[in-house]
Amino acid sequence: MALDAFADVLAANDAYARGYRLGDLRGSAAKGLAVVTCMDTRIEPLAMLGLRPGDAKILRNAGGRVTDEILRTLVVASYLLNVDRVMVIAHTDCRMTGGADDELHEAIAAAGGPDTRDLSFGVVPDQQAAVRADVERIRSFGYLPGLRVGGFVFDVGSGRLTPV
Amino acid sequence: MALDAFADVLAANDAYARGYRLGDLRGSAAKGLAVVTCMDTRIEPLAMLGLRPGDAKILRNAGGRVTDEILRTLVVASYLLNVDRVMVIAHTDCRMTGGADDELHEAIAAAGGPDTRDLSFGVVPDQQAAVRADVERIRSFGYLPGLRVGGFVFDVGSGRLTPV
Repeated sequence: MALDAFADVLAANDAYARGYRLGDLRGSAAKGLAVVTCMDTRIEPLAMLGLRPGDAKILRNAGGRVTDEILRTLVVASYLLNVDRVMVIAHTDCRMTGGADDELHEAIAAAGGPDTRDLSFGVVPDQQAAVRADVERIRSFGYLPGLRVGGFVFDVGSGRLTPV
Repeated sequence: MALDAFADVLAANDAYARGYRLGDLRGSAAKGLAVVTCMDTRIEPLAMLGLRPGDAKILRNAGGRVTDEILRTLVVASYLLNVDRVMVIAHTDCRMTGGADDELHEAIAAAGGPDTRDLSFGVVPDQQAAVRADVERIRSFGYLPGLRVGGFVFDVGSGRLTPV
């Protein structure tokens, strides 16, 4: 593998490792929390919740959606990794909401990309409704214990979370 | 929704928002990077790579695996969000590797959970092979441009990344 493409981040990791101390951190979530949120560059999942490494499991995808895979993962997290509450956190100014897949297909084509109309990106027209539905998916998934689940929107302009 | 379960993190978010300044951060990846890694509590994706908010898109799931959903997301990220390189980062001491789903099914049952044998968790026997296959999945996905892709394992004991 050509590592030239990653020389900057690998050099930074060398510095990180020199100052790294695992301490008593484990894979389980010390604060019982799992956070499902978006891949967006502006979101700092731990910092925005006052958390530190070791406190929470962080799941991130396009839009912060609760997929089948996330439901299965929450089963593992709840029985084996100390998770008993889940935050589903969408955010403002998200390309995965407020429209439909067609807009992404068109934007990709306009950017010189391929015809992606055979791909489903999962853009949702109504973010609040999507968050409510995602919260309900977790609450009603038969394999999960009675997790406490909340839905929120993170405002990338203000840094503030608002319950949905 | 009962917010009592989230009173601690919402209070922390209030403090975070008071000190928050978005500045010129945008949804695109300033350093052209997407990182696919695990939900593990010990991983700090930005810090371990010397990055800051705004630099990279962060995708996290159980094990840091390249799923179909992640391939589709990388299409959006590469054409619309400035991503031209991808790191796939597994880690040591991960429950999603070095065995098979059966061990998780048994551990969940032993923890008082339900019979989950109808669920596929995607545990892999060989982490190095899985990372190599995931890197190859990205390289060979027809809808993606020529992204630079690298596979790595993060050592939770040392904080160090090793190329696969």
